Amino acid sequence: MKLRDLGEFPFLRRLRSRVPADPQVLLGLGDDCAAVALSGTTLLTTDAMIENVHFRREWAPFTVLGEKAFSVNASDIAAMGGEPTFALLSLGVPQDCEVEDLDAFFAGFVQAAGACGAALVGGNMSAAPCLMLSVTLLGRAPHKVLTRAGARVDDDLYVTGTLGDAALGLRMLREEKDSQEAQEVKDRFLRPTARLTVGPEAAARGLATAMIDVSDGLLQDLGHLCEESRVGAVVEAQALPLSRAYRALLGGGDWSLALTGGEDYELLFSAAADLRTAVAALAQKSGCPITRIGRVVPQAEGLSVRGPDGAPYTPGHAGYDHFRPT
Amino acid sequence: MKLRDLGEFPFLRRLRSRVPADPQVLLGLGDDCAAVALSGTTLLTTDAMIENVHFRREWAPFTVLGEKAFSVNASDIAAMGGEPTFALLSLGVPQDCEVEDLDAFFAGFVQAAGACGAALVGGNMSAAPCLMLSVTLLGRAPHKVLTRAGARVDDDLYVTGTLGDAALGLRMLREEKDSQEAQEVKDRFLRPTARLTVGPEAAARGLATAMIDVSDGLLQDLGHLCEESRVGAVVEAQALPLSRAYRALLGGGDWSLALTGGEDYELLFSAAADLRTAVAALAQKSGCPITRIGRVVPQAEGLSVRGPDGAPYTPGHAGYDHFRPT
Repeated sequence: MKLRDLGEFPFLRRLRSRVPADPQVLLGLGDDCAAVALSGTTLLTTDAMIENVHFRREWAPFTVLGEKAFSVNASDIAAMGGEPTFALLSLGVPQDCEVEDLDAFFAGFVQAAGACGAALVGGNMSAAPCLMLSVTLLGRAPHKVLTRAGARVDDDLYVTGTLGDAALGLRMLREEKDSQEAQEVKDRFLRPTARLTVGPEAAARGLATAMIDVSDGLLQDLGHLCEESRVGAVVEAQALPLSRAYRALLGGGDWSLALTGGEDYELLFSAAADLRTAVAALAQKSGCPITRIGRVVPQAEGLSVRGPDGAPYTPGHAGYDHFRPT
Repeated sequence: MKLRDLGEFPFLRRLRSRVPADPQVLLGLGDDCAAVALSGTTLLTTDAMIENVHFRREWAPFTVLGEKAFSVNASDIAAMGGEPTFALLSLGVPQDCEVEDLDAFFAGFVQAAGACGAALVGGNMSAAPCLMLSVTLLGRAPHKVLTRAGARVDDDLYVTGTLGDAALGLRMLREEKDSQEAQEVKDRFLRPTARLTVGPEAAARGLATAMIDVSDGLLQDLGHLCEESRVGAVVEAQALPLSRAYRALLGGGDWSLALTGGEDYELLFSAAADLRTAVAALAQKSGCPITRIGRVVPQAEGLSVRGPDGAPYTPGHAGYDHFRPT
């Protein structure tokens, strides 16, 4: 059934009946506003996914789109050391959209939110020339808020998981490759994992001096962290965590996508050098690999990458800017 | 200058320097999340404006677009009896967009937010095939939260301001009319006034049993209020507040747009019949006309409009649904 045959309000009424009740929500979907009871420090973030810019409809089922729309926002909350609480969805939907596809999108979104204790409380839907999925996510910050500022000279730099897989997956999707390794990296692009344990735990344990999530590429995001912290950084290319699939597809000596590819949604953070054991313990407890990739240097030394021979390594470009040709 | 020539991050850095500091904001633009300190009941709403669906670029300067993007969300906060506090903006922007136009949009938005004590704390910008302006607005609810549920049989129904002007203005914009009256109603469409005094004051004084803002047309929105309150309603067509321009353009006997036209952003509320003097006092104090337009009846009697002769009056259609042909 097309959305235009069901109508906006009947669709929203159906949706409302499918969102699980949450005792923390004073008033959920279905009024001019949602109402929630909040206290302490509240984190706020918003991020959008736009058809043919961030995704193509044929690349994944709508449930997967819904999960990703939640996860990319949850990653921002995790990067502050916080935990997601309440979400709002602002959707632009083409008139010929199938109700079943929208149902699947919402199911994926609500499932991903529920899996980390967050609730969909509000939204808006309007006609649009393409699918536009804009999410606002609130979070609580039970510990110190981890900002991009705070990295100190001689801190270590760490990153969770592996880098470059999502960008490589996007390339595999565009080139319609389907080897086992291609499938693995496509999955990293389509179903990123927000690091919802490492972020808050790093805050709770006082490990990180600064943190950011890697959404625009390591160098771009490390650049933001350095700028806000007024420091420089040296990254050791050989230390970058690469997945088995990445090595198989690109070779272990090509760090370009690990340095510049976007959408990995891993966490990048700085920590004092005497906390290496504590960081290793966090990796152990959370089940999430955390790799030391470099260190913080004075701002005057800038941001550099060193190759295996100690010489500067220069990747193709520095990261993703929506408005600049790459 | 085109946005693609300046780049996303330099643009955001410039923007950040132009947003006034706010002591309630722990962390504003420029990190993965904003951080704010909230307590009590927090209202949350989100609404989007999409190019060629909600507006055409040539209809108004970008400052006016920015003001409206804020106001339509502020209206939702007012309709709950609340006051806007913090805003987030998720923008989709075509690559060839002029930086000056975006500057003007943000200036209008920030000015409108500041005028009611609210602050822009977060946002996101990405490429898109057309302009997509999605806003999330938070609000505080210092008094009772006014929902759509709560209207009781024999309550009076009231509406602020005048009805139908925005829809008539949209028609005048499409038909490129430019008489004095056409200008007046166009202005109502382009620069709606959120009723930021009447909403909270009605809550503070305990006047309203239920409230909603009129964004999709009076009958549509009254229908929502009746559904949530499990009541019916009778509207007296002759009582509907029409502007001088509306009467001049359509005649005083044509209530169709006043009943079904969207985007007026007036407040519709129900109040006990023994509070008429108190409602009049609120209108007086706020400087905003409030007109009694009908009354609440049992649900079984449904929703009806009576013409001047007491007979049922039927407008062309019931209101705006994005996904149904009108």
